[in-house]
Amino acid sequence: MKDVMTITSGQNPRVKEVVMLQQKSAERKRTGLFVVEGARELMHCMEAGLEVKEVYVCPEIAGEETVDEVWRLTGEAERVEVTPEVYEKMAYRGSTEGVIAVVKARNVGLLDLQLSAEPLLVVVERVEKPGNLGAILRSADAAGADAVVVCDALTDLYNPNLIRSAIGAVFTVPCVVCSSEECIAFLKERGIQILTAQLQDSQLYYNSDMRRGTAIVMGTESTGLTPMWRKAADAHIRIPMLGRLDSLNVSVSTAILLFEAVRQRMTNND
Amino acid sequence: MKDVMTITSGQNPRVKEVVMLQQKSAERKRTGLFVVEGARELMHCMEAGLEVKEVYVCPEIAGEETVDEVWRLTGEAERVEVTPEVYEKMAYRGSTEGVIAVVKARNVGLLDLQLSAEPLLVVVERVEKPGNLGAILRSADAAGADAVVVCDALTDLYNPNLIRSAIGAVFTVPCVVCSSEECIAFLKERGIQILTAQLQDSQLYYNSDMRRGTAIVMGTESTGLTPMWRKAADAHIRIPMLGRLDSLNVSVSTAILLFEAVRQRMTNND
Repeated sequence: MKDVMTITSGQNPRVKEVVMLQQKSAERKRTGLFVVEGARELMHCMEAGLEVKEVYVCPEIAGEETVDEVWRLTGEAERVEVTPEVYEKMAYRGSTEGVIAVVKARNVGLLDLQLSAEPLLVVVERVEKPGNLGAILRSADAAGADAVVVCDALTDLYNPNLIRSAIGAVFTVPCVVCSSEECIAFLKERGIQILTAQLQDSQLYYNSDMRRGTAIVMGTESTGLTPMWRKAADAHIRIPMLGRLDSLNVSVSTAILLFEAVRQRMTNND
Repeated sequence: MKDVMTITSGQNPRVKEVVMLQQKSAERKRTGLFVVEGARELMHCMEAGLEVKEVYVCPEIAGEETVDEVWRLTGEAERVEVTPEVYEKMAYRGSTEGVIAVVKARNVGLLDLQLSAEPLLVVVERVEKPGNLGAILRSADAAGADAVVVCDALTDLYNPNLIRSAIGAVFTVPCVVCSSEECIAFLKERGIQILTAQLQDSQLYYNSDMRRGTAIVMGTESTGLTPMWRKAADAHIRIPMLGRLDSLNVSVSTAILLFEAVRQRMTNND
């Protein structure tokens, strides 16, 4: 049985470090570490083979059964028990699960991706809100996408809002951060068609053949895609807007396009 | 030119009343009033023919041009100018648009709906999060749905989170609140097929014919639909889950199903 340290003071330097990792992307970058909250997310994180450095549990909040399960799962990690007061300080936005882990980030590059014969990829350029990227990852998991590529990222993959909204998908879906140039070169080399979501000069999305290797490329809700992507595209596709407003949420649009690919791939292949 | 009142104190009873309307659904129910923030949302609200009672602007935040436009749009409403400090107190979650209106709620019943020949409806049972319902309304607008019906509601339609996430769609899409019994009776009478989203005992969603009058019925993310809806269904439909997690966000699922109906209706009619 591994030793379990106990922390009862919110002034403990480890507590402060966890708070820093939650709040500051610069601290995540400097240390190469990030924070996972919740037993289920931690499980997905372990399954993905990520290295867990430290686990903090609050038995009063998590319950003894969950604590035992967490200790069982995280064999090598350092074990710390904290009081509810200390836990509240470490947790992001009032999560009440009682389990927090510090995990080593893993940088996956385009060349690390193991793609299927006719891959289905999501590319997001300059996505602004971590919550939207998390929701996109969740839909990419459901659609069985090969990977999500984040180009010219404005958020890091380990932002707590992203992890929260992804509900584990940040660990189940391979996710690469790179430049648009690198991504376009990679897709062209592999012969993966580039379908850019844009209103101007585009065809209705369901008229595209998405059964072959396909990258669905999404821009920001406010300014759309940059010219580099528009030029690199094999086709421009749009979702028809039949109402009185003029836009869909970017994570909703992505899901509609992904599941059209799923539909085409699961139905007839003529 | 109508008179413009000026409020400089956060203790003014009108300011307190707006805050109450933002925060308390009971107060919205008691008065039949709700709050709209932002010039664009107010415009959608006016276009929908809702009665605006009071308009509060903060010229320092909104700018003179927006203020003039707002006065032009809201002919009959009472006009109030407030200071930035007072505005901050009235606004929900740090909106910085500088325009707030108190609007008379309008209760739309099932029998008030003007449906197309083969209507497309969204029914949500007991949806928990106002933000999800707002996102569903936004997708319903984009898909040109005839209406959204909220059964056995746990949130009122005028929750500020709902209005915010709907980005105006709460005004552009007819929205009815009623019981599940009433809704089922209405759909059966009109011969509108009921497609319930559920994993068990279901067919893949794209194998359903959604070109005829269709109601897509969604349950909660946690517990799904009640037996009453499952029994009333003409077909049970599911979105295939091809990943390692087991669920999609309810607003994302709704959008995927709605746009499959759009696709079927816009492509061949054989």
